Amino acid sequence: MMGVKMKYLRNAWYAGALSTELDSGPVSRELLGDRMVLFRSESGRTAALSDRCPHRFAPLSLGRVAGEHIECGYHGLRFDGSGKCVLNPHGDKRISPRAEVGSWPTRERYGFVWFWPGDPKLADDASIPPYPFNADPDRFAVVYGHIDVAAHYELVVDNLLDLSHVEFLHPLFKQSGGVDSHQMSYGVEGTTVIANRLKPNVEIQGLARFFWTSPSKRFDARSNMRWLPPSALIFDLGGTECGAPVEEGVCLPNAHLIPPASEFCCHYFWSIARNRQIDDEESGRGLQQITQKVFTTEDIPMIEAQQRNIGQVTDILSLRPLTLEPDTPAVRARLILADLIRRETDAQAAAAE
Amino acid sequence: MMGVKMKYLRNAWYAGALSTELDSGPVSRELLGDRMVLFRSESGRTAALSDRCPHRFAPLSLGRVAGEHIECGYHGLRFDGSGKCVLNPHGDKRISPRAEVGSWPTRERYGFVWFWPGDPKLADDASIPPYPFNADPDRFAVVYGHIDVAAHYELVVDNLLDLSHVEFLHPLFKQSGGVDSHQMSYGVEGTTVIANRLKPNVEIQGLARFFWTSPSKRFDARSNMRWLPPSALIFDLGGTECGAPVEEGVCLPNAHLIPPASEFCCHYFWSIARNRQIDDEESGRGLQQITQKVFTTEDIPMIEAQQRNIGQVTDILSLRPLTLEPDTPAVRARLILADLIRRETDAQAAAAE
Amino acid sequence: MMGVKMKYLRNAWYAGALSTELDSGPVSRELLGDRMVLFRSESGRTAALSDRCPHRFAPLSLGRVAGEHIECGYHGLRFDGSGKCVLNPHGDKRISPRAEVGSWPTRERYGFVWFWPGDPKLADDASIPPYPFNADPDRFAVVYGHIDVAAHYELVVDNLLDLSHVEFLHPLFKQSGGVDSHQMSYGVEGTTVIANRLKPNVEIQGLARFFWTSPSKRFDARSNMRWLPPSALIFDLGGTECGAPVEEGVCLPNAHLIPPASEFCCHYFWSIARNRQIDDEESGRGLQQITQKVFTTEDIPMIEAQQRNIGQVTDILSLRPLTLEPDTPAVRARLILADLIRRETDAQAAAAE
Repeated sequence: MMGVKMKYLRNAWYAGALSTELDSGPVSRELLGDRMVLFRSESGRTAALSDRCPHRFAPLSLGRVAGEHIECGYHGLRFDGSGKCVLNPHGDKRISPRAEVGSWPTRERYGFVWFWPGDPKLADDASIPPYPFNADPDRFAVVYGHIDVAAHYELVVDNLLDLSHVEFLHPLFKQSGGVDSHQMSYGVEGTTVIANRLKPNVEIQGLARFFWTSPSKRFDARSNMRWLPPSALIFDLGGTECGAPVEEGVCLPNAHLIPPASEFCCHYFWSIARNRQIDDEESGRGLQQITQKVFTTEDIPMIEAQQRNIGQVTDILSLRPLTLEPDTPAVRARLILADLIRRETDAQAAAAE
Repeated sequence: MMGVKMKYLRNAWYAGALSTELDSGPVSRELLGDRMVLFRSESGRTAALSDRCPHRFAPLSLGRVAGEHIECGYHGLRFDGSGKCVLNPHGDKRISPRAEVGSWPTRERYGFVWFWPGDPKLADDASIPPYPFNADPDRFAVVYGHIDVAAHYELVVDNLLDLSHVEFLHPLFKQSGGVDSHQMSYGVEGTTVIANRLKPNVEIQGLARFFWTSPSKRFDARSNMRWLPPSALIFDLGGTECGAPVEEGVCLPNAHLIPPASEFCCHYFWSIARNRQIDDEESGRGLQQITQKVFTTEDIPMIEAQQRNIGQVTDILSLRPLTLEPDTPAVRARLILADLIRRETDAQAAAAE
Repeated sequence: MMGVKMKYLRNAWYAGALSTELDSGPVSRELLGDRMVLFRSESGRTAALSDRCPHRFAPLSLGRVAGEHIECGYHGLRFDGSGKCVLNPHGDKRISPRAEVGSWPTRERYGFVWFWPGDPKLADDASIPPYPFNADPDRFAVVYGHIDVAAHYELVVDNLLDLSHVEFLHPLFKQSGGVDSHQMSYGVEGTTVIANRLKPNVEIQGLARFFWTSPSKRFDARSNMRWLPPSALIFDLGGTECGAPVEEGVCLPNAHLIPPASEFCCHYFWSIARNRQIDDEESGRGLQQITQKVFTTEDIPMIEAQQRNIGQVTDILSLRPLTLEPDTPAVRARLILADLIRRETDAQAAAAE
């Protein structure tokens, strides 16, 4: 494990990769300021190690998976999933007790590979953010995407917790009534922040329209966002016949996971599940492409431009931005996260005494 | 207005854009260290605002012109040409008195958009550098260009005030007699520096040759440069039958405008008017392309290489360069500008007491 | 000559360019922290000057060779091979005694242009590293290459002094027996480090196989490396009928020359001579391409990744890497070079008193 870094919440699961990314070998990734190699062994066990061989400091990610181990591509040392060297092919072949690299607990679930940057003893499966629709193939088909973002991860969270921006930033998804057609409600449940937008009886619109088959011209649309610290969002997106129960309509539940890479860079992993046309791959490909395109050509350029305008400042609130009504949930989430990090830091300091 | 920065002359008009650049929407540009958005409203009024919305610090330039206003592309706040917020589409729609961005006086003239980075009360139209040939469509057709330069703006001014470099840097425009065929004269009129080069009775050469129709094989050529502080140049370029009055010949008067972007970057706006083939667009296109190509492949690479060799040094004179005879006007211009900046700074300091 | 820089060995010949690079005009190159222009005059004399005209600080490398001199491409000053200005085309044409640039002694030999960054009085031809096979056209044909590397030059030396990496990094050149088929011997002769690898009676393998014509399926292969400080390597590569004398086999002697550009960048000049198919240009082209490709797609990415993992650290030993048996020669070379630099520095300090 690398040295304690106070600015991130450490006792939490973060997404480190899409599951599919590990299918073609080790992946190198900066996460919470550490350069990691993530890989899946032949038997299917995932691991996250420090991406730096202790021999010549070559990245292990330039090597290859060899059975249950990873082999350095420069001089052939092998390491197991806990970071211990298990093979030295040179000279007398002895393995120094120093031949070891840092490691992080990992899990593979919901189409993502998760890692735990805090105390390994606290890494409990129950606290992995729940995306059950990503593990329910009878009811849902799922598409995934990954984007690198040159901005602080909380700017991406802000974006998702204030969907009023859809009316201005995403011409394809505007409602004819603009923000006036949104019925907003905000809430906090423990450390979870909720930002719901109902758009009752509006023209068929948004992603749901691609899966709408009834002759109705209007529907009840919803964009309900739920944030779990530090940066996992569960997004209940859908549309239903006016007045009908939510379950009967088009359901497009999303995962949005935004692990920090470093202070001003983050990763954006997303998925969209659908309860319509679940056997139609073409349909899934179209949904994947349109979503990835909207994120990469509309949201991310705006967020990265924000960061450039702000400069090397971590906390946008320290710049006293003008706060509007729809900023409420994002501001709450920022305060909750800052408080959790403060409490974690205090607990570490107390334990150290 | 941003904080006082001493190193630029502030009470002066600078070109901020070509007029045509604003035809397709707002333009973001760094000028004198400030990131500005320049735009033209539906009724044709230009404006220059700080390119940073006070809400989430998104660049206003990623938004759009809406009537007389500019709309932020992230959450829809609108601002007028003076920088005041005029619309908040969210919640109770109240507009905070803090909802405002910085602004600069602008004018549109001679095919350029000008801004005034100093005291707005001193922004008088009479001090816009005069390019009357750019506003005389009966006699002149004009082509324009814009180049970003990774160098201090005074290195570009130096280049233009010493045209002896044409004989070495621009193979297409060399005179067969080399620098020996130039008759130079230098002068200072108030704060204006003059650097004239006459090349009497030389082979038909330079840009003028493309518009030369007489059977004569030789002409009187002239390259007369006039610098106005801080970085505007009026260039009287042309060729005439040997001994004939200047007005009867080919006249290709130029504007060269070099506003600083930041300490080691600048913009280079240029225009060339012509009193020949003024209805021939093909001819104008050729003139535009050849000029832009010479600047971008010959002058700018040399100037940027100079800057790289000098490093992060603002005043080349502090490095004690070897000074040759044709450096005289550029050295004079640098001293005049340094003196004007010093006087402006002193006046501000006196006013502040 | 630029200011004394302690971190490089200065009284030594370094390769600055391939001979062929100067065929098409002046070359600009950073070497030991100095930006130089290297050129060959019309009569064939090479020179290395500071790449910065004392007039406007333009790079002389953007100019041209004019007879025995180099002409600045901006305003036409000319300099001879010792750095003295010999022509000022402007005004009264007088040449200031300050019109001069720094220069370094050069030699052209073995297909490389060498320069001497230390005391010119000590620049003796005898100490140019010997590559006689590059000057023996009756017996050898030679191909050359040049690569820019974003890493400290000693990381490239390390790579060459530990060829066990071939078994892991270069799939095309692996031995079926792996590192176990290598018989290694190391040695030091004065300040020279030797790292020999014999692979007796192995399957025909490596570059030698492309030139192997006998029906034998196995041969005695050798990869004998010899390092001369600061960063010249003589590589005796070849394969022979099992038990036959080395001279009768395929001989592919290499030069590897790694002059530092700056602290974390270097140049890699290489050549491979061959005593087979010496009149077959196609064969030479193939050998050049395959070698350049292996270096640029396998070695250099690994070495640059090492440097990125290490960060801005000059001496990898200061990070306490795990040391394996085949690291022995590289560690010896590092200690010898550090000692030579220390002795040179002490001698300079003593002389200065």
